[in-house]
Order: sequence, then structure tokens, then C-alpha cells
Amino acid sequence: MAEATRKLANGAQHIDFSTDPSRYRHWKLAVDGNVATLTMDVDEKGGLYEGYELKLNSYDLGVDIELADALQRLRFEHPEVKVILLRSGKPRVFCAGANIRMLAGATHADKVNFCKFTNETRNGIEDSSENSGQKTIAVVTGSCAGGGYELALAADHIMLVDDGSSTVSLPELPLLAVLPGTGGLTRVTDKRKVRRDHADVFCTTEEGIKGKRAVEWRLVDEIVPNTKREEVVKARAEEFARKSDRPAGAKGVALTPLKRRFEGDAIEYETLTLAIDRAGRRATITLRGPDANPPANAEEMTAQGAEFWPLKAARELDDAILHIRTNELELAVIVFKSQGDSDKVLAYDAFLDANKTDWLAREIRNYWKRVLKRIDLTSRSLVAVIEPGSCFAGTLAEIVLACDRSYMLIGQLNGGNLPPATLTLSDANFGPYPMPNGITRLQSRFLDDKAALDNARAKIGQPLEAEAAEEAGLVTFAYDDIDWDDEIRIFLEERASFSPDGLTGMEANLRFGGPETMESKIFARLTAWQNWIFQRPNAVGEEGALRRYGTGQKATFDMRRV
Amino acid sequence: MAEATRKLANGAQHIDFSTDPSRYRHWKLAVDGNVATLTMDVDEKGGLYEGYELKLNSYDLGVDIELADALQRLRFEHPEVKVILLRSGKPRVFCAGANIRMLAGATHADKVNFCKFTNETRNGIEDSSENSGQKTIAVVTGSCAGGGYELALAADHIMLVDDGSSTVSLPELPLLAVLPGTGGLTRVTDKRKVRRDHADVFCTTEEGIKGKRAVEWRLVDEIVPNTKREEVVKARAEEFARKSDRPAGAKGVALTPLKRRFEGDAIEYETLTLAIDRAGRRATITLRGPDANPPANAEEMTAQGAEFWPLKAARELDDAILHIRTNELELAVIVFKSQGDSDKVLAYDAFLDANKTDWLAREIRNYWKRVLKRIDLTSRSLVAVIEPGSCFAGTLAEIVLACDRSYMLIGQLNGGNLPPATLTLSDANFGPYPMPNGITRLQSRFLDDKAALDNARAKIGQPLEAEAAEEAGLVTFAYDDIDWDDEIRIFLEERASFSPDGLTGMEANLRFGGPETMESKIFARLTAWQNWIFQRPNAVGEEGALRRYGTGQKATFDMRRV
Repeated sequence: MAEATRKLANGAQHIDFSTDPSRYRHWKLAVDGNVATLTMDVDEKGGLYEGYELKLNSYDLGVDIELADALQRLRFEHPEVKVILLRSGKPRVFCAGANIRMLAGATHADKVNFCKFTNETRNGIEDSSENSGQKTIAVVTGSCAGGGYELALAADHIMLVDDGSSTVSLPELPLLAVLPGTGGLTRVTDKRKVRRDHADVFCTTEEGIKGKRAVEWRLVDEIVPNTKREEVVKARAEEFARKSDRPAGAKGVALTPLKRRFEGDAIEYETLTLAIDRAGRRATITLRGPDANPPANAEEMTAQGAEFWPLKAARELDDAILHIRTNELELAVIVFKSQGDSDKVLAYDAFLDANKTDWLAREIRNYWKRVLKRIDLTSRSLVAVIEPGSCFAGTLAEIVLACDRSYMLIGQLNGGNLPPATLTLSDANFGPYPMPNGITRLQSRFLDDKAALDNARAKIGQPLEAEAAEEAGLVTFAYDDIDWDDEIRIFLEERASFSPDGLTGMEANLRFGGPETMESKIFARLTAWQNWIFQRPNAVGEEGALRRYGTGQKATFDMRRV
Repeated sequence: MAEATRKLANGAQHIDFSTDPSRYRHWKLAVDGNVATLTMDVDEKGGLYEGYELKLNSYDLGVDIELADALQRLRFEHPEVKVILLRSGKPRVFCAGANIRMLAGATHADKVNFCKFTNETRNGIEDSSENSGQKTIAVVTGSCAGGGYELALAADHIMLVDDGSSTVSLPELPLLAVLPGTGGLTRVTDKRKVRRDHADVFCTTEEGIKGKRAVEWRLVDEIVPNTKREEVVKARAEEFARKSDRPAGAKGVALTPLKRRFEGDAIEYETLTLAIDRAGRRATITLRGPDANPPANAEEMTAQGAEFWPLKAARELDDAILHIRTNELELAVIVFKSQGDSDKVLAYDAFLDANKTDWLAREIRNYWKRVLKRIDLTSRSLVAVIEPGSCFAGTLAEIVLACDRSYMLIGQLNGGNLPPATLTLSDANFGPYPMPNGITRLQSRFLDDKAALDNARAKIGQPLEAEAAEEAGLVTFAYDDIDWDDEIRIFLEERASFSPDGLTGMEANLRFGGPETMESKIFARLTAWQNWIFQRPNAVGEEGALRRYGTGQKATFDMRRV
């Protein structure tokens, strides 16, 4: 398979996940009382890469980065917003889905990273509805196809205009020989509960479905005559607003630009440093705990806004992870380290817990939950290295539990004068941060070992030195300084020598023992099959459907079923 | 990727799934009281294909066909057997797993079909323990690597001899850049509940783990000094036998050779016909209902033995499905039809239900369950065509519910004199045949629609004509004879025109809405990732690990993580 290396548009050197509404090219965000309208109006010339035009409200990663930013701002900057209307700014088309030219020319890694991020954004819409009181209504006018319908599927309510031409469809299979892989197949069966045989018909019907059948088959929630459209939109918005527990009269928090400095191969953030060792094929993220104690109350937290340590640290960590995933494909391992005062980290956990009825504290916890899930879903080997001076406690200890392995030093490093490293659990490790499969990282670690879980709970608040942490099953290995450097070096070298694909597959299995949820099914059953198809000549080969789309030539298929 | 087409050994024209102990080359089956010993002693020269030797108790599909046959015979021919010992007939090696030369030279389809069948066989071992009272103990002596350990993982109990050299390992990733894909990763986390970080270490440690650590990490249940081996084996066998509810003094049923005739592109079985339309890329399986009424009691059923219609039909259907899967790769669709008397089919259902405490009736139900799961997991489009004269009732109606779609004729066919087709549910559609995801096909169909499920239950025993069946949501489409031929033709042509891979991925998602189980995770999360890796150059390319294994040359990897 040819793997064309595409050039980023406008001479960009890497993909940047931070943006703000003043820079949006594809979305318009308007807030009116407790209703926000997110209007998709994609700039054809605004592709992230060179070489394609984003016609018919089709999207690429750049369009989705703006959407993710807008949704994030609605959560933090607009506590008053209870309902989000997803609308199209184009006539006759709601959204045509992922841009096919973009997909056809993308490397395999780019396709996979694109789908992963768009999936995370759509899961975020549902999380917002479930846990942050922002309900989403898709107002579908015109053709809503493929990824366009998958976006609508993330909403709480899908309204389809009944004008004889507006349709919903998932034409990926008949048109492109790929799957509706941004959650489409899974949401059709598991969220909308479309009957499996109807789903089979729907997903093989290129032209889509409209009108009454779309409702009967549960593909949309209602059809609305065009003349009554705005009236119904208003009524639905009011209805969904009543289901929201977003506060009235609260003041939002501005998500000010991240302060980060690129310094050679490192990025210096305020709460962490990302250092890259290219020869060793690893990134080291050193998290810095808070310098100050938490504020006295929720008002002071709001006043600190984006400077409030847990919010700032989550934003910076999120950005660092996305940067590695997307821009640093050759790195095999992410090493997590930390520096700081565990007591202060725990004080912030206690503060967020004490204020959990506050909308902003809730939002910050929800954000940490999403960042931690992003780590779970990052296809790099993850290791925590716990040394004297570290502050892996509570929320930061959750990162240790997200790792494939963890190494903890027994006692002091030769020549060091810092006290031995400790690991401390807090209530934050027992509930607020479920993994995509719906259970906590500790539950996932001790799948049927209730005694181990109870024992861990009994240790909340106790700083555990290495041997105690190992004994409690919280770290993989505890070594003293005689073995320390060698053990870690051997592990890092070994990991860098293995097949990256083998590791991706292995980690995607070992990280998610136990139950599956709709969310985890999207990243397992659906995504793994889609990734397989993204390798198959029938889709991506020279004569495959994805490459031949729009050329006038029909795809040629190898007809053997596998 | 080069797709070498291998030749079957000994001039065989197709892969045959039927065998019997007199023809085994790789396994020895011995029964002593209530304990059976299955000894793996692979004949190096007995490969299914030409071009490799099955050294060190490594296996290919042919070895596994014998294993599946032996397990099936233990269930039916040996009601007295309560415990199965899995042992090796070779010194110093228990089993080296799937043969690497075989895998390296296999087509993608062969790899996938091989893994699917071996997975089904291992799931069958667990089903036998859970539902048929046959418990399995793996007595591991020597090296137990990769697929060898995955076989042991299917057992209820893994005993590892503590002789300083016997080990368990999953070296697939470090050695071959592929996954332990025959359930290995999933069983390590979800069955044995090995802690995820320990699993990470284990699955990247080529040389495996032995002795005390193997027990501490839950990889095996016990280690036993070689000198005490036989004593402990005996004690464990007695212990597990006490947990079994297999009957004492019952007479087994001989699984006599299938009677099937190959006639051109058709296979004529006694209870069904398999017809192949190569140009149309479809197989039609026409099931024939029973001619006679069920026997008067369990004794008569036992006397009929392999001639008892439900047992014969299950065996023949199983064989037909496996034949299509493995030998007819270019067929896109399986069309299920039936002919016969629905009342008689229902009478057999009632008979099995009335005798469900009888070991043989239970065994037959369990077998139908496995055959129906085999259909669920068959990567061909499945369609039921329900016409006058058909007998889709109860157990046979379950096949309709397993299909991706179903078409039912309203009224009579032009010129036909048969009464209109009916579909009839029985208790068999509400419990005994769960899908791999643990719920019935009707529950899967009406995921959260309790009213529809209750309505279906209320219709038990009622012959539903097409419009009533459609109204009840049991068939996809009901057409009268004006549209009938065209609708079915269009569907079959359309299906044959789509990308086979796209269909495989789509169907694997739409068929399994709702919950996941360890079994369904093996076929989704694990298998889909493995299939992806089986396409990646790092594993299967000219310089990939699978191709380079044993050549002395190291694999060259594309180091980009995806």
C-alpha cells in the first residue's frame, strides 16, 4: 500500500490541538440564554492538509479539533448552557461525513488517529449529556451521511426535517467498502437499538432513509415539517433544558491559551514537561504537583479559573498526550514521572470532593476522567517510574494505574537525599474516574479479587513506600537502587524493539479486562474491525473502493470472504 | 503481501471436518472409568497442507479437527466421563502452539479460519465444563507455549510440573509480532484474572514463567513436583469428578459417519442439501424437517442414537457450515431455506424440553447451541427465505433469527398449491440457545424493547403467516409473489457486489448488539485486533517477524505506532 506523506496546510510543522473561537474556520458558536447553537459551516479551503477540499460540510481532523474545542468551552465557559443545537450552515446538506479524498490519501496511522480523536469527541458529547447536564439536539436538514449521521447519533435527540429530501444514511459500506467506524455501527445497535436486520438494510442502502421509516426504524426521534421546524426546535430545546441540572447565574471560566514552549524536542508546560528521547523512542512526561494549597472555597476556585491547578494540569496533560499520539508516531513508550508534594495533590482531591456539587468542580473531575480515558486509549506502552520526590497520589496515582507497568524505587537513590518515594491512594481512585469499560482502574486491576480492592481502600491516605505498594498490588515492581537503572533500561529497550503493531493489539486487550460498555465496544469491536479494513486492499488498495471513489472507475474486489 | 496458495497434503481436494479415532494421527483418546485422557502426540509428517512439519507438538487445523472430534465423542459416546486430562505424549514439550511455518505460509483467510475454528473448539471445552459436566485438567509437562498455553487456559485446572524446566508462556508478541489470538489475551485477563501489569510482563517474556511465580500470578493453579505428579493428577481427577453431574451407568451414543454425497457443486446430506451457485456467489442450505414424530421416551431416543433427527440435523448442519467457511471462500451469501412439517419440528422441541434432565437431550441442546453460535460467527451474509412448504419453527426458527435478514412470502407462490408459509416460535427461542454474547437471538433482536419480546413470547406455538411475523418483528420483509423474486434477486446480487471485507466487519458489529462476554470478546476485541495484525507488514510482510522466524534474520519493523 502506498503511504503518501501528506503536507500540512499553511506550512504547519505539527498538528495543534489548541484553538479558540476567534480562529475557527468551520464552526460558529452562538449562545442565546441557556441554548447554544453549534453551526457546522465547513470552509472548503480550510483542510488541515494540502490536497483536498472540504466540500459539502465534510470534515477532517482540523474540523473536529474545532468541534472538540467548542464543546469544551461550552462546558467550562458557559455554565448557563443546558442545550446544544447541532445545525448545518449549508443548504441541502447537514454533513457529508469524513472527507473521502482526505481519507483516501491518509496514511494508516493518520486514519486511525483521526477516527480515535473523532470518537473521543463524540463520546464527550454523550458524557456531557450524562454527567454535565448539557443535552444535545441534532437538527438535521439536508443530507446527513456517514460521519454526519454518526455525529447526530451522539446527540440526545435527532430531529429530521421532513422535506422529501433530507435523509440520514451510513453509506460507507456500499460506497467506500469501509465501516461507519466513528461509533456508527455500535450506536445504531446499542444506543438507538435499531433492530439488527433493519440496521443491515440501513447500512447497505447508499441513498439513506427518510420520513416515517426513519422514525419507525428508530434512526431518528422525530420528523418535522420544514414549516414547523423552528417552532419544534424551540419546544425541544425547552423540553431538554428542563432535564438539565446546569446552574443558573453561575459565572464561566475562560479557557485561556495554554502556556507552552517548544524547546527543541521538549515541550515545557506550566504543570508538566514533555521530553523526547528520539534514539530511545520514548517520551517522558514529568508532572509537577501544585505549589500552593487549594483555595478556601468554590468562589476562589472560580476566580483562579484556568489557573486552578487541577484544571490547568488536565488541559496540559491532554494536549501533551494528543501531541505525542498525532505528531510523534515513532515513540514506543510514554514514561510518566512526577515531582512535588503528595499532600498538596491530595488536598486538591479533597477540595474537589468537598465541592463536588459545584458545577466547576464537577466539570474538572469529568475532564480528568476524559483525559485519563485518553491515556487508556493511547496506543503507546505506558510506564510509571516512581522515584523519590514524586507525588503520585490520588488523581495523579490514577496515572500509575493507567500504565501497562509501574516501577517503584525502594529507599533512596544512590547519592540522593530525598526521602523514599511514596504512592498514596485517595477517594479519587475509587469512583470518579471510570475507564471506558465502566469500571475503575483499581477494579480493572483486581478484577475478581475483592480482598485486594478492599485492602487498597483501607490504605486511602497512607503514603505507601515501594515494598508496601508492591505488596498491595499497586505497582508492578519495586527495586532498590542496585537494580533500578538496569531494570528500567532493559524494559525501555525491550519495548522499543518489539513490533509496534503487536504492542498496540496486546495493550488494547490487556488494558480492558472485564466488562464492555458501548464506549469500549466502539474502541474494540468496531475500531479493531475498521482498522483491519483500513489495511485491506478492497478498501485501500490501488483498485480499492476508497481510492477509486469519485474517479468514475468501479473498485475491483478480491471476492474471498475472510 | 504474497498469498501463497498451499496444497493440501495427500492430494486432498478440500478440508474435511469429519473424522474418527481410528483415523487420528495426532491424539490418543483413552477412557478409564470416569476419566478420559487426551494425549497430544502430533505426527510431524501429518500436516494438513504440504510444506511444513509439525515439530514439538505444534499444531495446524488438521490437529485441531481431531481434537474437536475427540471432545465431541467424549460428550456423546462417553456419558460416564466426568474428567478429561489433557496431556502430552512427547518428552520436554507439552505443546508448542500453532505451527509457525504453517502460519507464515498461510493465506490471510486460512489464518483467520484456523483461528476461528480453534477458538470455537476451546470455547467448547469451557461449555462442556459449564453445561455438560465434563471438567478438563491440563497436566503440563515441559514447555507449554503460545497456543499450547491457550489450550491449557481452556481447562478448568492447570497443573504445572515443577521440574525446573516446565514453563508456560505466550511468546507470540516478542517472537512473532502477533498476538496470542486463540483466546490467550482474553482468558489471561478475564478468566484467570491475571493482573494486567503481570499479564503485560508475561506476554512479553519469551522464555515464559515457571514455578512459584506462575502460581502467584495466577497463570497456573498449582505446581507439582515430578515425583508426585501422578498421585496429584489422580487426586485432582477425583476432586473434579465429584463436581460433575454426568450420569452413572448411561449408555453412550455412537457418532456414526455422516452420510453425505458430493454431487458436483452440491452436497446431499440426509437432513439437508447444500447447493452452490458459483456465478451468483451463494450457497443455499435447505433444511429438511423430521419425517417421523419424536420417540416415546429417552430410551428410544438413545436407541435411535445418531439417527435421532435433532442430533443428525445438528451434525450435518455443522459440517455444511464448516465446509462453506473453509472450502468455499468466494461465496458471499448463505441462503437458508427449509422444507417439512413445522408441527413435527415443534414436537421434537417439546420432546427435548420434556427430557431436559436426560444427559443426551441436554447434550443435543448444547450441540445445537454451539452450531447456532457457529452460524453467528460465520463471516458470510446470512439470509432466511421463508416460502410455502417451509418448517421454520422452534429450533429451526432460531436459524431465521441468526440471519442478517429474512424474507417471507405473503400467501401462495403464483401457481403453487401449498398453503402460505408460517413461522412458529417455541420455548427453544427463549433460553436454551444463547448467542456468544450471552443473550438469546430474540433478546438481541429486541434489545431494550421488552414489549416486543413479551409479545413474541405470547405467540409461542402460533403459526404466524408472513404479515403477522413481520408485524411481530420476527422477519425483515414480507412480500407477495409480485415482488418476491425481484426483491430476493436484488438483495442477493447487491450482497455479492459489496466488498467482502466490509461485509465481514459490518456483520460482526451488527450481529452482536448489547452485552459482551469473555467468549464474544475473544471474537471481537481479540480476534479483530489479531486479524489487523495478520495484515500488517511487521508481522506478515517479507521482512516481518512471522516470515523471518527461524531464518536467522531478524525482522525489520516499521516503527510507527498506530
